[in-house]
Amino acid sequence: MTTLTFEDLAIGEVGEFGPYRVDEAEIVEFGRRFDPQRMHVDPEAAAGTIFGGLIASGWHTCAIAMRLAVDGWLSRMDVIGGTGIDGVRLLRPVRPGDALRARVAVEELLPSAPPRSGGSVRWSYALHNQDDVLVMEGATTMLVAGRPG
Amino acid sequence: MTTLTFEDLAIGEVGEFGPYRVDEAEIVEFGRRFDPQRMHVDPEAAAGTIFGGLIASGWHTCAIAMRLAVDGWLSRMDVIGGTGIDGVRLLRPVRPGDALRARVAVEELLPSAPPRSGGSVRWSYALHNQDDVLVMEGATTMLVAGRPG
Repeated sequence: MTTLTFEDLAIGEVGEFGPYRVDEAEIVEFGRRFDPQRMHVDPEAAAGTIFGGLIASGWHTCAIAMRLAVDGWLSRMDVIGGTGIDGVRLLRPVRPGDALRARVAVEELLPSAPPRSGGSVRWSYALHNQDDVLVMEGATTMLVAGRPG
Repeated sequence: MTTLTFEDLAIGEVGEFGPYRVDEAEIVEFGRRFDPQRMHVDPEAAAGTIFGGLIASGWHTCAIAMRLAVDGWLSRMDVIGGTGIDGVRLLRPVRPGDALRARVAVEELLPSAPPRSGGSVRWSYALHNQDDVLVMEGATTMLVAGRPG
């Protein structure tokens, strides 16, 4: 598989990845570990909320978007490290049984100052469910290595 | 334990929570599930990166901040749901063995339009490690229920 460098990326380039199927066990497991609020961990109590049942933690939804981006695109790059997360909007609940698809786009490219190579990439994310409803959007920024030599 | 409502919160109110001890197994487990890049999942390959060893996924670091906020504060409230995440800066690596403390502050309060009660709360987060180094800062927005009746 081709290894991509910072120079191979172009603003507006888009990848579409998924689906990622979310089940109740995963929602509860993530919730218990990181976000133990009733709508994420307790099916009975969640039924009494405005959502009428369990929903995924927003952090879980974001982590699923990351997984789709890594599998579909970022694993082919030498990502140095993530630097930021911005503009995340949790627009609709993610429920057990949902199948999520990610649309990931290169939004901004900022080359590092010489003599460093590579640069900072801002990726925008949009996550849709099986009914084509936008459930989450946001952006992450990360440093990606440049062409060697 | 007292249940807090939207009306009980004041801008500038601060809570300090933790420590949360991060170990290698948790870093690798989170990485394998949601962010399978070498610096999060493969100790040997991670040793060859600029970090010189495993570091936590930024999403994992954020999820830890959430856990500290839920245990320390949010679990005493009727949180309706999260709506957004903004301005996250991943400033320093989080490594196995780190002990993280969260400083959580009420940054903005936006009451819902009547007849709805409660409102939107913007919380700022700052996460420091055992050396008092700021590793992450950011903000989340969520809807919190108002006083009943």
